[in-house]
Amino acid sequence: MNLVIIGGDAAGMSAASRARRIDPEAEIIVLEKTSDVSYSACGMPYNIADPNKEIDELVVRPAKVFREKFSIDLRLGHTVTRIDRENNTVIGIEEQEKQEFKINYDKLLIATGASPIYPDIPGLDKEGISSLKNLQDGRQIKNYLSRNSVSKAVIIGMGYIALEMAEAFRDLDIKVTMVKPRSQILPWMSNQLSETVKKELQENEVELYPGQKINKIERHSQGLNLSCSEVELSCDFVLPATGVSPNSKIALDAGLEAGPGNSIAVDRYMRTTDPNIYAAGDCADAYHVLSGKKTWVPLALWANRGGRAAADNIYGKNLRMQGIASTSVFKVFNLEVAKTGFSYFEAIEHGFDPVEVNISSRSRAHNHPGSKTIQVAMLGDRNTGLLLGAQMLGMEGCAHRINAVAVALHNNMLVEDFWQTDLSYAPPFGPVWDPLLTAANQLSKQL
Amino acid sequence: MNLVIIGGDAAGMSAASRARRIDPEAEIIVLEKTSDVSYSACGMPYNIADPNKEIDELVVRPAKVFREKFSIDLRLGHTVTRIDRENNTVIGIEEQEKQEFKINYDKLLIATGASPIYPDIPGLDKEGISSLKNLQDGRQIKNYLSRNSVSKAVIIGMGYIALEMAEAFRDLDIKVTMVKPRSQILPWMSNQLSETVKKELQENEVELYPGQKINKIERHSQGLNLSCSEVELSCDFVLPATGVSPNSKIALDAGLEAGPGNSIAVDRYMRTTDPNIYAAGDCADAYHVLSGKKTWVPLALWANRGGRAAADNIYGKNLRMQGIASTSVFKVFNLEVAKTGFSYFEAIEHGFDPVEVNISSRSRAHNHPGSKTIQVAMLGDRNTGLLLGAQMLGMEGCAHRINAVAVALHNNMLVEDFWQTDLSYAPPFGPVWDPLLTAANQLSKQL
Repeated sequence: MNLVIIGGDAAGMSAASRARRIDPEAEIIVLEKTSDVSYSACGMPYNIADPNKEIDELVVRPAKVFREKFSIDLRLGHTVTRIDRENNTVIGIEEQEKQEFKINYDKLLIATGASPIYPDIPGLDKEGISSLKNLQDGRQIKNYLSRNSVSKAVIIGMGYIALEMAEAFRDLDIKVTMVKPRSQILPWMSNQLSETVKKELQENEVELYPGQKINKIERHSQGLNLSCSEVELSCDFVLPATGVSPNSKIALDAGLEAGPGNSIAVDRYMRTTDPNIYAAGDCADAYHVLSGKKTWVPLALWANRGGRAAADNIYGKNLRMQGIASTSVFKVFNLEVAKTGFSYFEAIEHGFDPVEVNISSRSRAHNHPGSKTIQVAMLGDRNTGLLLGAQMLGMEGCAHRINAVAVALHNNMLVEDFWQTDLSYAPPFGPVWDPLLTAANQLSKQL
Repeated sequence: MNLVIIGGDAAGMSAASRARRIDPEAEIIVLEKTSDVSYSACGMPYNIADPNKEIDELVVRPAKVFREKFSIDLRLGHTVTRIDRENNTVIGIEEQEKQEFKINYDKLLIATGASPIYPDIPGLDKEGISSLKNLQDGRQIKNYLSRNSVSKAVIIGMGYIALEMAEAFRDLDIKVTMVKPRSQILPWMSNQLSETVKKELQENEVELYPGQKINKIERHSQGLNLSCSEVELSCDFVLPATGVSPNSKIALDAGLEAGPGNSIAVDRYMRTTDPNIYAAGDCADAYHVLSGKKTWVPLALWANRGGRAAADNIYGKNLRMQGIASTSVFKVFNLEVAKTGFSYFEAIEHGFDPVEVNISSRSRAHNHPGSKTIQVAMLGDRNTGLLLGAQMLGMEGCAHRINAVAVALHNNMLVEDFWQTDLSYAPPFGPVWDPLLTAANQLSKQL
């Protein structure tokens, strides 16, 4: 049996490695359109922040290792343009020789990832404007910053990558302005928490312009100019970071069913609607552990997990995936910002009647030195008492604390039962009643 | 209805406050034998480490507040010596006037806590020897250290308090020697992890003598001398810290049923075998969430929770307690050491057939600066695949990470299901596959 994998990043290479581990004899072909495989995409902002680091330090396993140690037929510069399901064939272009290729598959895994959404702004193609998704983007941005005098950057968007890049630019002593059309900074976050993020950005001299439509970008001799609805912004570099969308075109063109957000629909075994074709990673959808409904959340762990599970199932292991709780964390300057489960509006979309509480607690015990504020927003369902999710932030103690809630969501716990969980306590690490328990207690009273 | 509470620490004062909140008219009498109530006992090592801090800074709420703001009849220096169940009366001695008192109760809560176990060593009553359990102990140790020239301390025992006090003494530039009869440093911990703790202690110049019986302690003009089976230790101060035992005598003398370790047996509603008498805190037992069997683990959160729940149930709220997962964490120098669920031998005692794996992972992503080693030991049951517990340690990222496992234990998760949980990831906070997921993956393979 041969396995063809389209895409050589998190999901694709996890699948390839897993397939090799399961079947030492399997023929495994990976078709990757760029020249990079298996790198830590999430590490790019931190690498860019440090001019002494090479972008290639983010490569976890080089192509050579996959080829020689794992005997994987890894073909770089191979862009698949079409899937011919009738003939079990993928068709594409090899970049260097511009030759068409056709490859037969017994089983196919689509792991094409996601691409940045380019906002519809005239002038977005000018020099000094680059988004950050793959390693080649990171390489280009790093090169641009080292070869040009960049003292001011504008970031379009205020999501994870935008916020992490704001910090990276400030580390490089570049002035940062963030601008976006919607008025809310972090629309998935409770107002109280999002205000704290805003303050943290402002304290680190990041200028914020939410609620600004960007009409055009022009290039002058001195740099770039963004004309927005109420403000003109000049800078030396523009980073559009307004989210990503799944690279699902070849799958949907081939008649495979679509999931939310134009992703590729997969079942709990990572199978698409074609029994010979699987999909995993940022291009595929997932079941939410709370609602059991489909959702699309491009996150690194799920991509790795999905690729691995696809290989397991292709090789007959029958691994049923529980789904995602949509847990995430990011660092923005001195804050750890974490989330799991549904935000208020997501909960409504998934059919719940959410109640949200916001509490403020401490990262260390009463009177313990160095204690910081921790804010928690927690949501429960008015009808069932079900715990729906939590968001939290603080200067310490949030990145891993959120996981207690994530595990609770996997078990469909009631808020009142979560309140009973036996969480750790010692003075250097929190109050006797963990901030999450305090939030659960308050939320219980409201339900 | 009047409520009498014996003991004014975590469980007792949690109960008193909760009772007042439920019933503004209730008559609530608290009988506390010392002169202190409502303080952070766990904070004592950190307070002792800082000569500029007063021990009374650990008081969370002074007696005055309970009396005036909460209208609680708080009687300090009142030691209860006997419970007369036939007449619903407690009998005791008031310390100042040495007068006997008798107080009737409608409902009684026993929250007498635990006391240090004094090892049977001749000379343990000498000056310069003090254990650390209540605030008065802390006060005495602090006074002793400030008034005497203490340059070397010996700690008997290697449990939480012993380890935290080792750090406190080192912070005060006092040389520390730890000695105990058993040969293992931390018998509840996997060997690999316990070796790391040992190394951390040695790197911080703590001398370790496990496996040493202490035959006697003598006082000379220069200080104290401990004669052990193979070594003589001289010092200026001795801290016996060989564990605690429940203060259950008055309860058991009154014919109430005993739980493990001579604690007071309570049901899931914190009731003893007398329907009018409840018990909570370090003196009472608890159900383990995994085995459903009784256990006795003196921990601060459970004491607070139990006291509060007792009040809820005394006032008719019918709150059923899930029990404990036995989650704990402590800091020892630069290490966070955390545990939840069963250790290998505890698992056997509770009727499981444990399999343990030990893994080593990182606290931050591939190539992220500042990454530290995280070690995890994880246990599962061979027969059922049930997750039984985990221990972990590292210089960061352990104190709250353990809570994901704690919540899993409350839900009796299988190891393979825990492996599927959607834990947070960002490069500054861990690898894509959280160390706990890596451990669960390894453990799954062994089950």
